[in-house]
Amino acid sequence: MKLSSKMERCGLSPMRKFNPLADEVKARGIKIYHLNIGQPDVETPAPFYQALRAFDEKVVAYAPSSGVPAFVDAVRGYYKRIGVELKRGEVLPTFGGSEALQMTLATILDDGDEIIIPEPFYPNYATSVTLAGAKIHPIPTFVEEDYFYADRARVEACINAHTRAIFITNPGNPTGSILTPDQLRLMLDIAREHELFLICDEVYREFVYAGEPLLSALQFPGYEENVIIIDSVSKRFSACGARVGCVISKNAQFMGEVMKWCQCRLASATVDQIASAALYGMDPSYFDVVRDEYRLRRDTMVKKLKEIPGVICGMPRGAFYVMCALPVDDADKFQTWLLKEFSDHGETVLFACGEPFYATPGRGKNEVRLAYTINAPDIARAIDILKIAIEAYNKR
Amino acid sequence: MKLSSKMERCGLSPMRKFNPLADEVKARGIKIYHLNIGQPDVETPAPFYQALRAFDEKVVAYAPSSGVPAFVDAVRGYYKRIGVELKRGEVLPTFGGSEALQMTLATILDDGDEIIIPEPFYPNYATSVTLAGAKIHPIPTFVEEDYFYADRARVEACINAHTRAIFITNPGNPTGSILTPDQLRLMLDIAREHELFLICDEVYREFVYAGEPLLSALQFPGYEENVIIIDSVSKRFSACGARVGCVISKNAQFMGEVMKWCQCRLASATVDQIASAALYGMDPSYFDVVRDEYRLRRDTMVKKLKEIPGVICGMPRGAFYVMCALPVDDADKFQTWLLKEFSDHGETVLFACGEPFYATPGRGKNEVRLAYTINAPDIARAIDILKIAIEAYNKR
Repeated sequence: MKLSSKMERCGLSPMRKFNPLADEVKARGIKIYHLNIGQPDVETPAPFYQALRAFDEKVVAYAPSSGVPAFVDAVRGYYKRIGVELKRGEVLPTFGGSEALQMTLATILDDGDEIIIPEPFYPNYATSVTLAGAKIHPIPTFVEEDYFYADRARVEACINAHTRAIFITNPGNPTGSILTPDQLRLMLDIAREHELFLICDEVYREFVYAGEPLLSALQFPGYEENVIIIDSVSKRFSACGARVGCVISKNAQFMGEVMKWCQCRLASATVDQIASAALYGMDPSYFDVVRDEYRLRRDTMVKKLKEIPGVICGMPRGAFYVMCALPVDDADKFQTWLLKEFSDHGETVLFACGEPFYATPGRGKNEVRLAYTINAPDIARAIDILKIAIEAYNKR
Repeated sequence: MKLSSKMERCGLSPMRKFNPLADEVKARGIKIYHLNIGQPDVETPAPFYQALRAFDEKVVAYAPSSGVPAFVDAVRGYYKRIGVELKRGEVLPTFGGSEALQMTLATILDDGDEIIIPEPFYPNYATSVTLAGAKIHPIPTFVEEDYFYADRARVEACINAHTRAIFITNPGNPTGSILTPDQLRLMLDIAREHELFLICDEVYREFVYAGEPLLSALQFPGYEENVIIIDSVSKRFSACGARVGCVISKNAQFMGEVMKWCQCRLASATVDQIASAALYGMDPSYFDVVRDEYRLRRDTMVKKLKEIPGVICGMPRGAFYVMCALPVDDADKFQTWLLKEFSDHGETVLFACGEPFYATPGRGKNEVRLAYTINAPDIARAIDILKIAIEAYNKR
């Protein structure tokens, strides 16, 4: 029977598509180092569990579509600490940053529309853009230029009559690049001048490793009609499984339309919102400890990658991924081989293949995204395995 | 700035759109009887809370996109008790039945496609159909015929080259109608003969009040390629706020495409899936008690409604709603007046206005859906208020 041509144009997630094969490999007793997915091993803070256990309503009832007030207020409190005043209706809780993306793109994009996104980008953006009937107009970026894109001429060259929005990830996934305040202001100016939305995925905001002054797009007054923020507790508080995020905007017309999606799926989960609200009570010093740990992991991963002949990667300044080119013909074939035919002392490696991170055909074929969300010794071992595997693969 | 024309064609949920106004009314000290939403006051069973409190993983990690195995297996066990064998990949957990709907419709429907749905129907179906670029082709049904639609000629008259699926709710929301096994088989036959999906929203399956032999569409062998089930713990176990449901199908091609949506939003919530798995361990006698309570509420509501001159309603045989025509000009205006200008001893009533339950223009204008999910004395009082209000409204 016929299925949606839009869904048929979408792909499986490169972070997850090898999972069924990986499960088979594990069943054979092979250990897999998971560099494929941004699932931190950092413990979820205790207040989450305390709130979970303290929940004692007799009925696990629907939350309001506008969210559990305690959660919305916790998000508002977090933003107030960086000088951003948000009203209640300007924060709408979602099923993770993922649903915030889905509803934002479904609310903005029409058939035939275009959205500008620097590439490489988080591949799941493409699914929601495609389902809305639109397409990604990429701004190509390159490791040799430190994934730079905040240039007026480059960005404006991508704008045409079909353009509805510019979508940036800051800090970048998969690149780890971050925008300086001046660069972010330039992106805001371009969006405002061309009457476009600037959608900012800021879920990695706390993870910047050199003390750079990373600003939220909300911290720039005068762009209220243009800015939409995608946020989430997943990475920030190592609570990916809670599936709690939010969409934030001061554009009332946009938020009014988003509410239709919110009401259509009734509400996001009640207990998870309550437990996530408790996370925002963490002292900001919490992030210092986590940041130090990720910095160690990043340094370990990049140092080890540089030891592999032919590997090309930059030094990510934020988030927890390294995008790199491997000296192999095809990352997808290499990953299949790593799972089906290779192991070193009973161990192998899983990564996210690079091609779906690009909209430009042909780019990313020999690239992979590696997440440094496992501990440093495991990262060192995983990259050693990768080195041995690359040699063996190219000698076949 | 321009927003999606598809989203602009959608409406707010009639179950929730008056909530902001209702909050203002409550702030003035007015008590509101909520007949607008299917939020049961029945206590969520203890195993949910026990599982919640027993959760002791150090990291609240992403679940697999295919679901927490314990939850998937609990659903499989539930179906096994009614003779339906399901493999693991045939059940995919979702954020409530709502997301199961969203992903099913996004997977099947293309721009210009049609889906056949008996009207009145659950209004949130329309949002997902519209966002997919498709439209609802209604089978009109009427209270005078007990909302009957399972007739070959009536259904086939709606099928054309654009038709992709037939969507039924069994038991019906908002009608409370249920299909006999022969009627359900007829719907299955029509779907198979015309190579259409039969999407069956069966979330109210346990709520049938006269011991009718209600069957799941999965219990009919030979229709595996056609049947898609929407299911949820929300109503069944009075756990609406858990936002846990699932999509079930033996059509591997369909499930493969649905997996793209599942991976795009990574996973549904980990702890809620674990806690919901525990609900399926409830002894089936649990439903007997709950069913008796709902039957009492239904009888109370219908008896009281019949006392109001000019009200027209049937006797719902399942679910927990009564669709009825009120002797007023416009339910929407009446609801606004009920909130803004009326109260009886400081109390008023909230219902879901009928028009969005229909795709045929002009139908449902003086109809409302009333949920009998509050206790019987409150229902009796609420319908008394409705009676007084109708008189006052028509005398203005």
